[in-house]
Amino acid sequence: MGELMQAVVKSAAEAGAELVTRSIPRPGADEVLVRVKATSICGTDVHIYGWNSWAAGRIRDLPQILGHEFAGEVVEVGSEVRRIKVGDFISAETHIPCRACKQCLTGQMHICNNLKILGVDCDGCFAEYAVVPEIVAWKNDPSVAPELAAVQEPLGNAVYCTLVEPVVGKSVLIFGDGPTGLFAAAVAHVAGASKTFLVGRHPVRMEIARKVGATQTLDDNRDDIEGTLLSETDGLGVDVVLDMAGTQRAIDLGFKMVRKGGRFSAFGVAGGRVSIDLNDGIVFKGVTVYGINGRLMFDTWFEVRNLLASGRLDISPIITHKLPLSEFAEGFELMVRRPKVSGKVVLIP
Amino acid sequence: MGELMQAVVKSAAEAGAELVTRSIPRPGADEVLVRVKATSICGTDVHIYGWNSWAAGRIRDLPQILGHEFAGEVVEVGSEVRRIKVGDFISAETHIPCRACKQCLTGQMHICNNLKILGVDCDGCFAEYAVVPEIVAWKNDPSVAPELAAVQEPLGNAVYCTLVEPVVGKSVLIFGDGPTGLFAAAVAHVAGASKTFLVGRHPVRMEIARKVGATQTLDDNRDDIEGTLLSETDGLGVDVVLDMAGTQRAIDLGFKMVRKGGRFSAFGVAGGRVSIDLNDGIVFKGVTVYGINGRLMFDTWFEVRNLLASGRLDISPIITHKLPLSEFAEGFELMVRRPKVSGKVVLIP
Amino acid sequence: MGELMQAVVKSAAEAGAELVTRSIPRPGADEVLVRVKATSICGTDVHIYGWNSWAAGRIRDLPQILGHEFAGEVVEVGSEVRRIKVGDFISAETHIPCRACKQCLTGQMHICNNLKILGVDCDGCFAEYAVVPEIVAWKNDPSVAPELAAVQEPLGNAVYCTLVEPVVGKSVLIFGDGPTGLFAAAVAHVAGASKTFLVGRHPVRMEIARKVGATQTLDDNRDDIEGTLLSETDGLGVDVVLDMAGTQRAIDLGFKMVRKGGRFSAFGVAGGRVSIDLNDGIVFKGVTVYGINGRLMFDTWFEVRNLLASGRLDISPIITHKLPLSEFAEGFELMVRRPKVSGKVVLIP
Amino acid sequence: MGELMQAVVKSAAEAGAELVTRSIPRPGADEVLVRVKATSICGTDVHIYGWNSWAAGRIRDLPQILGHEFAGEVVEVGSEVRRIKVGDFISAETHIPCRACKQCLTGQMHICNNLKILGVDCDGCFAEYAVVPEIVAWKNDPSVAPELAAVQEPLGNAVYCTLVEPVVGKSVLIFGDGPTGLFAAAVAHVAGASKTFLVGRHPVRMEIARKVGATQTLDDNRDDIEGTLLSETDGLGVDVVLDMAGTQRAIDLGFKMVRKGGRFSAFGVAGGRVSIDLNDGIVFKGVTVYGINGRLMFDTWFEVRNLLASGRLDISPIITHKLPLSEFAEGFELMVRRPKVSGKVVLIP
Repeated sequence: MGELMQAVVKSAAEAGAELVTRSIPRPGADEVLVRVKATSICGTDVHIYGWNSWAAGRIRDLPQILGHEFAGEVVEVGSEVRRIKVGDFISAETHIPCRACKQCLTGQMHICNNLKILGVDCDGCFAEYAVVPEIVAWKNDPSVAPELAAVQEPLGNAVYCTLVEPVVGKSVLIFGDGPTGLFAAAVAHVAGASKTFLVGRHPVRMEIARKVGATQTLDDNRDDIEGTLLSETDGLGVDVVLDMAGTQRAIDLGFKMVRKGGRFSAFGVAGGRVSIDLNDGIVFKGVTVYGINGRLMFDTWFEVRNLLASGRLDISPIITHKLPLSEFAEGFELMVRRPKVSGKVVLIP
Repeated sequence: MGELMQAVVKSAAEAGAELVTRSIPRPGADEVLVRVKATSICGTDVHIYGWNSWAAGRIRDLPQILGHEFAGEVVEVGSEVRRIKVGDFISAETHIPCRACKQCLTGQMHICNNLKILGVDCDGCFAEYAVVPEIVAWKNDPSVAPELAAVQEPLGNAVYCTLVEPVVGKSVLIFGDGPTGLFAAAVAHVAGASKTFLVGRHPVRMEIARKVGATQTLDDNRDDIEGTLLSETDGLGVDVVLDMAGTQRAIDLGFKMVRKGGRFSAFGVAGGRVSIDLNDGIVFKGVTVYGINGRLMFDTWFEVRNLLASGRLDISPIITHKLPLSEFAEGFELMVRRPKVSGKVVLIP
Repeated sequence: MGELMQAVVKSAAEAGAELVTRSIPRPGADEVLVRVKATSICGTDVHIYGWNSWAAGRIRDLPQILGHEFAGEVVEVGSEVRRIKVGDFISAETHIPCRACKQCLTGQMHICNNLKILGVDCDGCFAEYAVVPEIVAWKNDPSVAPELAAVQEPLGNAVYCTLVEPVVGKSVLIFGDGPTGLFAAAVAHVAGASKTFLVGRHPVRMEIARKVGATQTLDDNRDDIEGTLLSETDGLGVDVVLDMAGTQRAIDLGFKMVRKGGRFSAFGVAGGRVSIDLNDGIVFKGVTVYGINGRLMFDTWFEVRNLLASGRLDISPIITHKLPLSEFAEGFELMVRRPKVSGKVVLIP
Repeated sequence: MGELMQAVVKSAAEAGAELVTRSIPRPGADEVLVRVKATSICGTDVHIYGWNSWAAGRIRDLPQILGHEFAGEVVEVGSEVRRIKVGDFISAETHIPCRACKQCLTGQMHICNNLKILGVDCDGCFAEYAVVPEIVAWKNDPSVAPELAAVQEPLGNAVYCTLVEPVVGKSVLIFGDGPTGLFAAAVAHVAGASKTFLVGRHPVRMEIARKVGATQTLDDNRDDIEGTLLSETDGLGVDVVLDMAGTQRAIDLGFKMVRKGGRFSAFGVAGGRVSIDLNDGIVFKGVTVYGINGRLMFDTWFEVRNLLASGRLDISPIITHKLPLSEFAEGFELMVRRPKVSGKVVLIP
């Protein structure tokens, strides 16, 4: 292993990032060092790259390496590391738990009281090498390609959000044609949803949605969404709503379209407070709402691994671009300014 | 059985009601006729009595007999009636289901698509006799006193709302010191909650809450609610929030005080749309929200009956007033203008 | 409608049955009359046809029309019938509930305390016309072919048994290559099981299993079942066992192969008492066992309808034979003496 | 801290144990050293003390310190220990998990694939000091007395076994009047069971059961158990059976008495294979059976702590004897030969 590496670094409190040469980090006692084989761009990375107000308020120490979705090979482990070995092909959970709070002690580490986020609260993985705590390291199935293994983290969001209750034989309505919405369409399909609708705005992405399993996509700019959904559900509304958009529009339409006794999974992050018709949307309908953050550690990861390794879940149409790490700026450009042509973007160091 | 009866009737589209003499109704083929032994006043009755905008928009045919909570003896049954016999001591579920929609066919009759409400969509039970469909008739435990049996319907709201997930060993926060909130305090206690907090505004009602099992009551006008709850829960927030108030205040404070991974049961009816901090209140916390309407038919009723019959649940302190049916106006007065002295009000025909 | 019909009748307390001419029955007040379009043979019919000791002890009144699985068109309804109309294309739940017991009042009608079974406790549907109570009538999706609609009842067994907990991303082991085992393989596949193993003895049936979705079939006479399963599950054992056989062999192997924390669904009917290694098979492993009888009324039926209507579940390879009703004897022969060539057998009146 | 301590040690492969002087052990990097304030005797300790065939086959290295239930103060922590501090008042989970297997990664550490048991696979806590891995250390509520804190581990068995599904408003039948059965009676009561029956053989213990909450105790040698239970449950059978005995008698009677759709928690360890009426006891009834081993780590511990700290669960009548550690032989004697006078026995170093 050489001593220097290339990394995509946010150096200053302003938009943009740069490719810099850095020393390869060394793992602490409970950490592992990974040679990154593939890494992918998340919406959070886009916020940090663009340095919006959330990022400016949240990121504490600059310079910092961006990124948190990856797959790679372990090349060194710390002295306290027991489960992970050199040579393991791993990805990582982004939520770094404290292991001491009530949630960490009751199978809810993903909502730890003292959560740190990889690539947000510490250096990330848009680099040739990255260090992660053993507690979040996840052994991949060796048969899965690195670019697919890299996106297991956001895929896990979709798996947890979609499958928090069964969808088999049910109708599912997804808001949002970003990568997580597309993943959700694939997941709902493989899990046996009888009808999967996706509301989006970008024809290319909606075509991907149909390719991975959506029964029907609805263009929010043009289609009669309410009429279509009612006619497709005997006038009842859908069994399940997955909000991967977080917009007031999705919330209003979602609570209107969910059937009595149905389920609403809230994953999308809203721009601020939202207005809800609590009476007619939730109380009188007897609807259950699940706030979804992250993925179950590690129940969701097992599901993701098994679905990918078995070949049952084909998410490759969602990964529309694979670029060298050095072309990271083009990757961000694709996600921000050209959603019309892109799904998920993977970078290869 | 005589041919005439006394009944509390809303005759005109304006506030108030009057005691009138009516013919005793006859049960239809799938109905039963009950001689009412005790009946109790619900918030819905108060809305209809006071003829607020909701009532004016909802009630279709006048004159109509008010009331839907009761206990009594069956004195006649229709030709298709099989389960209920003359002489049975019954109460009734208020939600009259269609028996044909998807919810009715899947154990969710309480949120039937074509729901009718006793005393709202048809004549009610503030009378010496009442007719109810067999499908909603509920056989009471003979050992339970009529005034306790009469309030099983609102008690069932509290049982369903509180126990939609277990509370044993958990901390529970109740908003609202009306009768349903007080019932919820009693239910949380008997079901093993380790701490039960009730936020209210009326000292007499909060005293009742403590009597039936609340660990601590908090006066919304004076106490440091946030500080107290955080100090009582190791800074985590409460495991369970039961909103029996439906106010913006309860919603804001509830979603702020519920712990990560906690549960929020929404039963209170809001005055209109509400504003919610979806991100911090639900999504990032991984909170589950249950819309609660009515009671499970009839799982909740079995729980209610068993808890009352076993003597484990003592709700008698919540029934503060027992009046003759003819003094119904005083009953309404107690509930509307004098909540400082009243809990649940029962009328005896 | 003519006044006479052909029906397959068990006339005497001995093996066999005969095709006889009967009056078309008239529906009672709460019943519907159906013109049968397709009907299928169940193992229970085989027992009655062969008049084994169970049948001899259970069937009370002869002569009786056999059969309980069917699809057909409603041609007449009784005076109390409200949900079903003349012209509806229906099948029927076989479990006729009392509507009055605790289970019937709590969403568990399928295990009613006073259960009657269609074709066992009353005349069945191996006939041109059949009468069923409205309570068990199920409106089919009009797009589903009668021979597929006819087998929804046993398919529902498989759906309930398989999906009592989610299987998505899990490994599933099925014992039994009879029609219900084959249905279960199809269901596990459509619901997202990552690996589905079926243990059987008949090559033709195991080939069908693979066609409808089993990842791998294991021949109980030849294959190294334990070795294969351990190697396919990282030595852990399978997540889910579905016993559709009821043999001591299936029970022993099932509880041995299920992983710690796994699930065992017991649907197969045993020949008598069974021996179980309670400690190592259930207690120390923390296994959950579900006794499965019938199907949820009507949650399972909705799942079945949605899966068939959406085209997601293709069970047509399992229906290997379609015969005229008059050739019923050949149908029984196929199921009893020639399991090597048959899956499910459908009769067309 | 002195350098020597007293400990109850099994020195030879034969019945008995002796009080010996040992060096106080030092904690490893991920371990903590505890000064034991109270420790209690479990059935497992009795097996090892008596050196029955299970113990002879299971215990690998002698000499070994007995015991695994305790409460004490942390006096030293290893270099990798982060959650636990010197001065903490702790007890410990007995199941030492590997932290690497599938169960350990999915919230089921209590059934880890590579489980080690404190006091069985390594030195235990019948001593003045004991070493335990940090992963199993549990911080007690400071208000709970050491002798109550010491029995949280077996109490946790009862809590997990009883509350694996809610018992509120249900009838519960417990087999076994040993300490875990008595704990279960207390737990069922505090969690709102409407009727709790306990089948036992020792009048003193059954009296304790009634004191902590059993509605009725049934003497297996004399009472008409079936008749009583049927008459107390409207002929339906009980909602919940908790088998804390593991005898063929308990299994037969339990599956006979559980109602259709009911629940059977299997915690008792059987003497060998058992015979079960699978058809009538599980399949046709639609019964769910939970194998219960250990306690959820650490959901159950939180429930236990909250119930004890809130004063809602009073288990003090179950602790019938408190002896100095040096009188351990009398303690074993009480549990083995004199169950007629003893519940749980606590030893104080």
